[in-house]
Amino acid sequence: MKTQVCIIGAGPAGLLLGHLLRAEGVDCVVLERQTPDYVLGRIRAGVLETITVDLMERLGLDTRMKAEGLWHDGVNLADGERLIHIDMAELVGKRVMVYGQTELTRDLMDAAPERGLEVIYEASDAALHELEGDAPYVTYTKDGAEHRVDARFIVGCDGFHGPSRQAIPASVGKEFERVYPFGWLGILADVPPCNHELIYANHERGFALASMRSNTRSRYYVDVPLTDKVEEWSDDRLWDELAIRLGPDAAAHITRGPALEKSIAPLRSYVFAPMRHGSLLLCGDSAHIVPPTGAKGLNLAASDVHYAAAALSTFFTKSSNEGIVAYSDTALARVWKSERFSWTLTKLMHRFPEDGPFERAMQVAELDYIASSRAAQTSIAENYVGLPV
Amino acid sequence: MKTQVCIIGAGPAGLLLGHLLRAEGVDCVVLERQTPDYVLGRIRAGVLETITVDLMERLGLDTRMKAEGLWHDGVNLADGERLIHIDMAELVGKRVMVYGQTELTRDLMDAAPERGLEVIYEASDAALHELEGDAPYVTYTKDGAEHRVDARFIVGCDGFHGPSRQAIPASVGKEFERVYPFGWLGILADVPPCNHELIYANHERGFALASMRSNTRSRYYVDVPLTDKVEEWSDDRLWDELAIRLGPDAAAHITRGPALEKSIAPLRSYVFAPMRHGSLLLCGDSAHIVPPTGAKGLNLAASDVHYAAAALSTFFTKSSNEGIVAYSDTALARVWKSERFSWTLTKLMHRFPEDGPFERAMQVAELDYIASSRAAQTSIAENYVGLPV
Repeated sequence: MKTQVCIIGAGPAGLLLGHLLRAEGVDCVVLERQTPDYVLGRIRAGVLETITVDLMERLGLDTRMKAEGLWHDGVNLADGERLIHIDMAELVGKRVMVYGQTELTRDLMDAAPERGLEVIYEASDAALHELEGDAPYVTYTKDGAEHRVDARFIVGCDGFHGPSRQAIPASVGKEFERVYPFGWLGILADVPPCNHELIYANHERGFALASMRSNTRSRYYVDVPLTDKVEEWSDDRLWDELAIRLGPDAAAHITRGPALEKSIAPLRSYVFAPMRHGSLLLCGDSAHIVPPTGAKGLNLAASDVHYAAAALSTFFTKSSNEGIVAYSDTALARVWKSERFSWTLTKLMHRFPEDGPFERAMQVAELDYIASSRAAQTSIAENYVGLPV
Repeated sequence: MKTQVCIIGAGPAGLLLGHLLRAEGVDCVVLERQTPDYVLGRIRAGVLETITVDLMERLGLDTRMKAEGLWHDGVNLADGERLIHIDMAELVGKRVMVYGQTELTRDLMDAAPERGLEVIYEASDAALHELEGDAPYVTYTKDGAEHRVDARFIVGCDGFHGPSRQAIPASVGKEFERVYPFGWLGILADVPPCNHELIYANHERGFALASMRSNTRSRYYVDVPLTDKVEEWSDDRLWDELAIRLGPDAAAHITRGPALEKSIAPLRSYVFAPMRHGSLLLCGDSAHIVPPTGAKGLNLAASDVHYAAAALSTFFTKSSNEGIVAYSDTALARVWKSERFSWTLTKLMHRFPEDGPFERAMQVAELDYIASSRAAQTSIAENYVGLPV
């Protein structure tokens, strides 16, 4: 098969990019290792920045999102005694959309056939070839046969463990990494949320997050030692812990219910630079990971995709490679700022084993300062809704 | 001798408090271990926040400061390639005053006789007694004889190593401390400054600060390992290093000159809480230390003194102890925020031996973010000019 752009990975990044390219008349194909059901079964983030909402609007794929998603004007930081409300709508005139990544992926997936976006599922063993030249290709296996896609560009939207980044020779890239000494234990349940906005809590027993996917589906997290096992956390134990860490006001409104999903995810900050090698562009988790604090992962993939789509369509429709050449620097400038915000919010809201009384006092002072300063709240708000693209 | 308030220490904090109390008609005496010349010989900070300038104005002791001091509308952060200008005047409508701590101390010292402020110099071996009751007293030695001052309150303005804080039983207070893995090597020289405003630089070789005391007297710093000795740093070596770390634009304007003073100071964050024990109040360095980054030390002493003077004069003129009871919490609320700012700015502008590539990338991202965000610049500006009292 021959196409202009071969996209590896049909998660939200790959599908979003495919739709944007098709809308510009660029030929592309998306290869996905898993089945559609498997992709939709992955429980991920659910807070969309302006950039992500805007892209769905631009594609005209925002009908269900606008009908079912929840606009959030604010977000809350809690420390056991108080709730610091960051009023994003008032401070920066923007808001975020609560809409599960799974739902967004489904909308993109459902629209693929009618938009002429070809997605090949169960394409295993994808391998990237001849990246340094202008005729790269991808090989993969499906139904026992080997296939080959020739393209002008390959875009890796295949996540942290996918083959794209790993196809770049170690000598041409640099990795930046921070691993955190805890994981997030998450529970998804069909119960109404305890608060109409998210609450990030730094309690003496640890971090907690009250979040939601809809008015009837809640998502909660606590941080736990990486040595903990999910089996050690019964639903009851987890609900009890959430009630303590979120504080009495939130606890009074928690509705308990059986876990639809319960798992422990490690936290990591990771950046691979550059984000382009020859004819390969990386988007989203294939190039960088943020800890989930602040919900930047999906949104960062969306801004990468925004830059990549613009660069690729300019290449094919205007015969200019300026966007391609600039892609890595352009995308990384925003990536680093989101990494910064996620790291800063993670440090502010978690108790680190290596922190002593002074570092803990600095967390309290930071929260006190934020509570008292419009500038500090504005800074959080502009990052939370997403910095300009 | 019997008085209402016995102040230990005739540095800027003690003298400022003495003048404020005298202005309210409160009797007080200031005890100082050293001679006036020794006190004036201590080279310290030289950037005054609004609170400090306001207190000098309120006392009518601002004539020389207004004539000789330099108003600074902004401050700069540099990273070897660029200068990020924080325009405080435009962002928060305030500015800072560059006026050496030595000069401010001299103004307070010179005005003491005419204002009826008694300062007893060379009062050694000060010891505090009966702090828990309402009849505390201080003993000291002068000219070989032992003396005693009875007072209703004692205020410790005697710095980190003075006897006041050490007179509080270990069981009633808590210490918070962070020691930094480097010191500041400073040079004072009678040369014009290289820039009309301060430049804080984070260069790959380390930190540098271009500061000044006046248009003809400059103060520069670089950070050095704590194992370095002043003798290892000739004037030439230090000027060479400054030229590199401050970057070519600043370097082109550096005027070199012989060192009037050259020394290495360790950096420390320290807070002792509470700041009152019975009839003893602590002000300034006796209760807390900040790293010099951001020049908060003297200004934090000034805000403590502001609160202490108000509390004491209310006690004596209105027979209310509300201010005394609230003093520690009131002062500490601002102390912690200044500790936070000094710590944050220190972390942003220095290279820490324990930092890896990710942490270094986060410094760059933070500087990039600051350069691009009015909210971030406003947050720095409001802290730099001093948070509200």
